[in-house]
Amino acid sequence: MSTDVIPATDRDAFYARLAANHYSPLWTLMGGLGPEPTTTLVPHIWRYAEARELMVEAGDVVPLEDALRRVLGFRNPGSLAHQRTGATDTLWAALQLVLPGEVAPAHRHTPSALRFIVEGAGAYTVVNGQRVAMEEGDFLLTPNGHWHEHGHLGDGPVIWLDGLDSPLVSRLNQYVLDEEDDLQQVDADLPAPFVNGMLAKHWGSPAKVAQPLVYKLADALEVIEHLRDGEGDPFDDIVVEYRNPISGGSVMTTIAAFLQLVRPGVDTRAHRHTHSTVYHVVRGSGHSVIAGERVEWTKGDTIAVPLWYEHSHHNHSSEDAILFSYTDKPAVEALGLGRTAASA
Amino acid sequence: MSTDVIPATDRDAFYARLAANHYSPLWTLMGGLGPEPTTTLVPHIWRYAEARELMVEAGDVVPLEDALRRVLGFRNPGSLAHQRTGATDTLWAALQLVLPGEVAPAHRHTPSALRFIVEGAGAYTVVNGQRVAMEEGDFLLTPNGHWHEHGHLGDGPVIWLDGLDSPLVSRLNQYVLDEEDDLQQVDADLPAPFVNGMLAKHWGSPAKVAQPLVYKLADALEVIEHLRDGEGDPFDDIVVEYRNPISGGSVMTTIAAFLQLVRPGVDTRAHRHTHSTVYHVVRGSGHSVIAGERVEWTKGDTIAVPLWYEHSHHNHSSEDAILFSYTDKPAVEALGLGRTAASA
Amino acid sequence: MSTDVIPATDRDAFYARLAANHYSPLWTLMGGLGPEPTTTLVPHIWRYAEARELMVEAGDVVPLEDALRRVLGFRNPGSLAHQRTGATDTLWAALQLVLPGEVAPAHRHTPSALRFIVEGAGAYTVVNGQRVAMEEGDFLLTPNGHWHEHGHLGDGPVIWLDGLDSPLVSRLNQYVLDEEDDLQQVDADLPAPFVNGMLAKHWGSPAKVAQPLVYKLADALEVIEHLRDGEGDPFDDIVVEYRNPISGGSVMTTIAAFLQLVRPGVDTRAHRHTHSTVYHVVRGSGHSVIAGERVEWTKGDTIAVPLWYEHSHHNHSSEDAILFSYTDKPAVEALGLGRTAASA
Amino acid sequence: MSTDVIPATDRDAFYARLAANHYSPLWTLMGGLGPEPTTTLVPHIWRYAEARELMVEAGDVVPLEDALRRVLGFRNPGSLAHQRTGATDTLWAALQLVLPGEVAPAHRHTPSALRFIVEGAGAYTVVNGQRVAMEEGDFLLTPNGHWHEHGHLGDGPVIWLDGLDSPLVSRLNQYVLDEEDDLQQVDADLPAPFVNGMLAKHWGSPAKVAQPLVYKLADALEVIEHLRDGEGDPFDDIVVEYRNPISGGSVMTTIAAFLQLVRPGVDTRAHRHTHSTVYHVVRGSGHSVIAGERVEWTKGDTIAVPLWYEHSHHNHSSEDAILFSYTDKPAVEALGLGRTAASA
Repeated sequence: MSTDVIPATDRDAFYARLAANHYSPLWTLMGGLGPEPTTTLVPHIWRYAEARELMVEAGDVVPLEDALRRVLGFRNPGSLAHQRTGATDTLWAALQLVLPGEVAPAHRHTPSALRFIVEGAGAYTVVNGQRVAMEEGDFLLTPNGHWHEHGHLGDGPVIWLDGLDSPLVSRLNQYVLDEEDDLQQVDADLPAPFVNGMLAKHWGSPAKVAQPLVYKLADALEVIEHLRDGEGDPFDDIVVEYRNPISGGSVMTTIAAFLQLVRPGVDTRAHRHTHSTVYHVVRGSGHSVIAGERVEWTKGDTIAVPLWYEHSHHNHSSEDAILFSYTDKPAVEALGLGRTAASA
Repeated sequence: MSTDVIPATDRDAFYARLAANHYSPLWTLMGGLGPEPTTTLVPHIWRYAEARELMVEAGDVVPLEDALRRVLGFRNPGSLAHQRTGATDTLWAALQLVLPGEVAPAHRHTPSALRFIVEGAGAYTVVNGQRVAMEEGDFLLTPNGHWHEHGHLGDGPVIWLDGLDSPLVSRLNQYVLDEEDDLQQVDADLPAPFVNGMLAKHWGSPAKVAQPLVYKLADALEVIEHLRDGEGDPFDDIVVEYRNPISGGSVMTTIAAFLQLVRPGVDTRAHRHTHSTVYHVVRGSGHSVIAGERVEWTKGDTIAVPLWYEHSHHNHSSEDAILFSYTDKPAVEALGLGRTAASA
Repeated sequence: MSTDVIPATDRDAFYARLAANHYSPLWTLMGGLGPEPTTTLVPHIWRYAEARELMVEAGDVVPLEDALRRVLGFRNPGSLAHQRTGATDTLWAALQLVLPGEVAPAHRHTPSALRFIVEGAGAYTVVNGQRVAMEEGDFLLTPNGHWHEHGHLGDGPVIWLDGLDSPLVSRLNQYVLDEEDDLQQVDADLPAPFVNGMLAKHWGSPAKVAQPLVYKLADALEVIEHLRDGEGDPFDDIVVEYRNPISGGSVMTTIAAFLQLVRPGVDTRAHRHTHSTVYHVVRGSGHSVIAGERVEWTKGDTIAVPLWYEHSHHNHSSEDAILFSYTDKPAVEALGLGRTAASA
Repeated sequence: MSTDVIPATDRDAFYARLAANHYSPLWTLMGGLGPEPTTTLVPHIWRYAEARELMVEAGDVVPLEDALRRVLGFRNPGSLAHQRTGATDTLWAALQLVLPGEVAPAHRHTPSALRFIVEGAGAYTVVNGQRVAMEEGDFLLTPNGHWHEHGHLGDGPVIWLDGLDSPLVSRLNQYVLDEEDDLQQVDADLPAPFVNGMLAKHWGSPAKVAQPLVYKLADALEVIEHLRDGEGDPFDDIVVEYRNPISGGSVMTTIAAFLQLVRPGVDTRAHRHTHSTVYHVVRGSGHSVIAGERVEWTKGDTIAVPLWYEHSHHNHSSEDAILFSYTDKPAVEALGLGRTAASA
């Protein structure tokens, strides 16, 4: 093992031989790494007015028979050509439109999904046999592996925000999809105190219920109202987490969800973290400063903050600003990769 | 160390010398032990008509100023003279009477307490600053260390069942009592979705709420109704457990509580276990067979089943029989002493 | 319900009627309670020289055939006549003597037991089929429900300290004892890395091993040596806990065990807690101040500190003082009753 | 929203407009999905003779000053051009060569790493200040975020297998690397009973130890020997898991590791699972059948089984075959994606 200088051509030949035999020298791979996580993805905002118009137009261009679900995904502008992304590296965000009388047949998949109803009424989702009505402001869950189908018995369009961890699941080659031609059999309604974990069947196999599948906006706002007079979180102001009361943890294994009030006059401090976030504006307007850029937002807009981008929130209006958000924090932390840094 | 026979008198002298020096030979202590747990306590039923009458009479005999709380405890007939017992070795059961305008000042203690409201309306309990109204059928908690006071703003007497683990705590010399002359400051009502664990404050110190403090009878009956058409538990028929949705466990660290329906025509199988149970009849009538004896019960009656007594439940009427019950099962299991045996 | 004064004789008659019907008015029971836990038990020391001599004498007075196990219990001087106590309200402590060739047949019981070998060599315990040699300084476990028998293949007497939670278990009427005439079948030795949790069988039912059954004094002293140069615990100086590496918790469900070094010249601060402690002097000498009284101790002595007695430890010699101790802290905390207070 | 047929060109124009505005219609993305997870990666074996020769040759071609660590990675033949892979979608495998006197300076990173020493003696790793000697058969851990450096004080080359979850971490854009020019300060050796969780510091901040950092081959073989006479696992024969005795779980948050004996004459059943595996042959020889293809292996070979490939193991020789393996099972299960299927 001499220390003579090796001509570059010999090296190239050697590297080619390695590659041909399925070896890759580590020292050629560690180039771009440093003390900060990096992504090509960038912060971005999708305006509701634009997205809604394109969604409606999509209804003309693509018949539902072809689409099965009329879902317009938000793809991060920094995505590489063949990269599996959504709004962030791990989180999918989309608007979904359902028209009166339409039905999306039952399927289930390994990504976990949530819905936040943006406008309209009369639609419903059936999750593992439980029918859940969908009203504006509702937050619904269809966890990993749960059968779900959508329908619409009302008038006028219903639009909701879809949130999934499908980019995360796809990058690990773990996306599995089962489809059914038939609709699910709908079970009798479950009693509420059963679903929220205050009463439990005490014998035999557990009853058919794992956790609540819907959270009402009014409930979350009531809790926010209860907390609004204190000192808020320096980074998010008055923020409550939707929780799984059965497990005491986040709503799903890989996704956490929040409702937050940025009170009039509040400027939060900036921080960044190794989980990424999708924000959706429920009420009011304001702006965020993300990586030094000011992003104005108003009702219906959706904002992606990929991992490790510094961000703060600001409400200079005289009205409450309410944001719904979801993150991959439970997944990142389950893998031992969670890190947060407050900005100076 | 010879093997010659030792005269009994020498032994007695030696034993006396040991005792005087605070030694006790193990071989003199293991006499009564065998493969089954034993207690001198016995199954017993306290009839509501009798207990209520004595309770009211106590109101005449003992002024509330002297009694502070007008609580008539059920003392197991098998109790030894100076033994700390209640209805069972570990569980206290009592009726408490509150008259309009009366106030029981705030105290707190290491035993955990529950109330089940038997009759009347208009009373309330303040638990660590949270005011909880008390209506017939309500099940209330005042866990270990929580300040609590009672008051009554309505008309007519209010009577409830008190359940505590005070005999357990007393036998371990762990009974600690703090009393206050003043009433507690009453805080604003907590939002329900906060209390049941579906929404959580997401920053700083946790919000002032640990768990639900009241469970409504209608909720428990709704869940029972949902389950009643299936096959019930062989030992308890249709039985649901009141749960702490924050922890996912029993309502308190040492006490579990249940509501059960014994359906018309049902005879359950007998079993026994190393935890003891207090039953209270909420609706209907029936009988239990405890250690081979038939005990008839009807609304308002309270029944003690000490540890390891075989028991089964029977409803030969055409009406539902509803039993509320509580046990020390969480305490027994936390100590690694839980055991259950079905009868042949 | 008038407020006229009731003659005492009427009250007495009423109380007698209540008692006859198995009721006990709460207001007659709360007398002695206050903000501190209380016990009639007192701190006490049993000197090894005395205890050893009585133990040997017991061997003459009581043949082993009668005693089955030659165990001389330490009974707290404050015990009430018929009260189930040991060295403290919850903890039994005793010396046990085994002579060459003797065998204590297999039994198992709901109390959990530990042994700390005080002198001699050549004895062994078989715990659920695992043979464990007993050498001076060894700390052995026979948890709740484990079959155990003792034998002695060596020369000279072997004496060990027995520690159990039998008073706790007895007070709850949960003492269950099973005895066998035959000895256990002894299994092959288990590999050490299996027992300490570093390697686990990965299929089917778990292997026959729950936790380590013996801890060597040299190991504990090595860890103490590793820690001795830092700042010690203000209340116990350099103290290490024997742990169950499988569960990560205390050695048994109800009992925790410790080895501690009180370094020459150290005076610890006083504190008290709602768990009780038995100390045994392994090496050196010193004194403790318990409830204001100075208690001198030296090798082999055993000291009881019942619950809530203030205590501190002092080594004014130039030699290390090593104490083995065990407490009911896991039981007290599992019941939600743990409390500690440092003295001013 | 008419149902007239839309010309394909209009659709293309619409899709282009969507893409330009960072939208992606879901219905164009769900094509390849079905009820099974899929990967382009393939099972593959890297022969030790070839890999070792290339590794030594690399020592000539690339000076260590350039390489920092002489690590020859195994890149799965099914990898797409710019895809972050290793031996599988989530697991990196490589051989690393260290020559006498060489030093690899300290770094730390978010991927977790393990080493299995294949040949040589005299090398060491310093992990967060703890020096760990590396002998043939040793299994070492450098969990996520732990500083580690390597050195070699002996004679002759030392070669080990490196296993990391770096492809998993990279795909989530969570790879963070910190490098140090200086070597770590080496702390005094930790007592073994401290590291394996049998004794714990009982006051103040926890001692500087989280878990064992090295497992000896002899220990694992002793446990295997203890278990070998029973019925083995149908899929892996006699398999033991290296465990973290502090947490009771897998050795690291994202990686589990195993040693398994395929006994002479054993043919295991086939199964598949959603975690992937790297096997390394420690002793003996045999073959696996992976997705229907027979792969012969012998000492030193490394085999990749990507997710959801059916595999079984076979030893038709008269000698024991010992395999070391590691998987991403803890990561896959933490994300709620674990699934296993036995073959018919």
